Amino acid sequence: MSLIVGVVGATGAVGEEMVKVLHHRKFPMKKILLFASERSAGKKVVTPYGELEVQLFSVEAVQACDYALMAVTGGFSTEFSPQIIANGKTIVIDNSSAWRYDDNTPLVIPEVNPQAMKDKLLIANPNCTTAIAAMALWPLHQRYTLKRVIISTYQAASGAGAAGMTELLEGTQKQLNKEPVVNEVFAHPLPFNVIPHIDSFQENGYTKEEMKVTWEMQKIFGDADIAISCTAVRIPTLRAHSEAITIETAKDVSADEARDMLRSAPGVKVVDDPAAKQYPMPLNATSQYDVEVGRIRQSLIFQPRGLDLFVSGDQLLRGAALNAVLIAEAKRLSLSDML
Amino acid sequence: MSLIVGVVGATGAVGEEMVKVLHHRKFPMKKILLFASERSAGKKVVTPYGELEVQLFSVEAVQACDYALMAVTGGFSTEFSPQIIANGKTIVIDNSSAWRYDDNTPLVIPEVNPQAMKDKLLIANPNCTTAIAAMALWPLHQRYTLKRVIISTYQAASGAGAAGMTELLEGTQKQLNKEPVVNEVFAHPLPFNVIPHIDSFQENGYTKEEMKVTWEMQKIFGDADIAISCTAVRIPTLRAHSEAITIETAKDVSADEARDMLRSAPGVKVVDDPAAKQYPMPLNATSQYDVEVGRIRQSLIFQPRGLDLFVSGDQLLRGAALNAVLIAEAKRLSLSDML
Repeated sequence: MSLIVGVVGATGAVGEEMVKVLHHRKFPMKKILLFASERSAGKKVVTPYGELEVQLFSVEAVQACDYALMAVTGGFSTEFSPQIIANGKTIVIDNSSAWRYDDNTPLVIPEVNPQAMKDKLLIANPNCTTAIAAMALWPLHQRYTLKRVIISTYQAASGAGAAGMTELLEGTQKQLNKEPVVNEVFAHPLPFNVIPHIDSFQENGYTKEEMKVTWEMQKIFGDADIAISCTAVRIPTLRAHSEAITIETAKDVSADEARDMLRSAPGVKVVDDPAAKQYPMPLNATSQYDVEVGRIRQSLIFQPRGLDLFVSGDQLLRGAALNAVLIAEAKRLSLSDML
Repeated sequence: MSLIVGVVGATGAVGEEMVKVLHHRKFPMKKILLFASERSAGKKVVTPYGELEVQLFSVEAVQACDYALMAVTGGFSTEFSPQIIANGKTIVIDNSSAWRYDDNTPLVIPEVNPQAMKDKLLIANPNCTTAIAAMALWPLHQRYTLKRVIISTYQAASGAGAAGMTELLEGTQKQLNKEPVVNEVFAHPLPFNVIPHIDSFQENGYTKEEMKVTWEMQKIFGDADIAISCTAVRIPTLRAHSEAITIETAKDVSADEARDMLRSAPGVKVVDDPAAKQYPMPLNATSQYDVEVGRIRQSLIFQPRGLDLFVSGDQLLRGAALNAVLIAEAKRLSLSDML
């Protein structure tokens, strides 16, 4: 219990969740340190560990930590993560997209590819949409070998941070009052709307958010042959992303067999009883560690080698904070093994 | 101008739109008659034609019409549509699903298969999700031959009628006030939620709403070889459905060529300038006749024979009222041709 854990960007939506998950999962530590930029440094925040003062970020201060969970921008991580790990000791788990596609940086979902971490000090956490889909797709890939994956997302406002949630809530009240709705976080007003645009557009017409799913899933699954296409869509929900997924497999698959197998998959909760109106929904997936998987059916498109399914997962947890803490847990156990 | 037009179910969300569209498109008529059940009969309603009294529905009263636009339930249409056309004169255009799959009843989108109407008196209007997708897919099918179509929908509350819209609006205000949200129209509370369940579940695990897209698209396109799979999802928007669509084609297709071709397709508005943040959205598609089509890109899944695209269309117009009036217009023109 001599470990010191730091959370960098501790006052953001993901940083706050990281502190909560560390506490809820009883991550063994002597001390937790919260870091933020000048704007938040000095603030006192209420956490499950009691009231804590937020410290001003500096490389030296974070290097005092054994684990640094980074809930920061890509630009920030690009600059500072290498400086932090230069001490040869601090393990940095980075939630930004800065290092995910770097060949020397493992991109890890602990239930999928913990072995990729090896002895690396910098470990990348996947994009939320990727992580949520991967929980359902990894067991299916192991058993049936995925050939094609088509994903359409239903992404919540909090994917754009706490400011996104606030903009949706305030804008919704304005629209109900028939007042003009303003948008700063989102490209267009989100209340009662759908915006098929998350992150920047790439030359191939896909957004970066959509390409992240392709790039990251292939890297995490260690299989560049899986063809993956995503349409990423922001919708007026607060928390938990949903995804409609169609897969083509190399081997025959049945909905019943897949459902049974997913029941024993880690991090997955099968919610698939249509007669009882039970299927994945943000309403239930919010604040849950497990990703809900349901609507599992033999695909009409890829027969008999395909399924359609629907998933809902808390993107602040499975897609960010929980995954980061699980990486820290796995890293800690693998280090203890080496002693 | 001697025609009499009746709207049956005139006080519902679709019926009201039918009256507005008839007026806006200047459908030539001597008289419009509004019919409803006992609950609404006798009411006076404000329409673009002035204040009109709603009449009690009876087969005889509707048989006085040359055209009867039916915005009624499947059960009602099953019982009464055959009785109405038994006079050998009244043309019934039915928005319910009662007759869509009947081999003797044409299912028509006038821009796609007007020839299917022949001399039939009963003509079925397609499901809204089908009609919206078909506007974009028909030109693509003609040029490139569709092999597989995968659709994920983002469907508005008004797909469940005016009561659906009211439930969403009232529930949203309640949730903002942190009061309990009740649901009667929808299977679960819809505010800030996503419900992957529209219409009843079928034995194959798809909902009837999802299967309608398969059955109807194949019938309208006259091609049972197109494999079509849909995931139909209710989201907290008020009006206009959106759909993420992936297609595999028999012939090579490029996004640029498809975009150019769709620019001249009837009933379609290409909204596809990502750099200017222009793409289909319910916010803009609401109350528009044309279906917005955008996010057109070479599919990462089906290369070089596939596209991904996104559509938004007003389901009360393109998916119901407008399509019904366009059927009446096409029928009227074909009858004039015969004189």
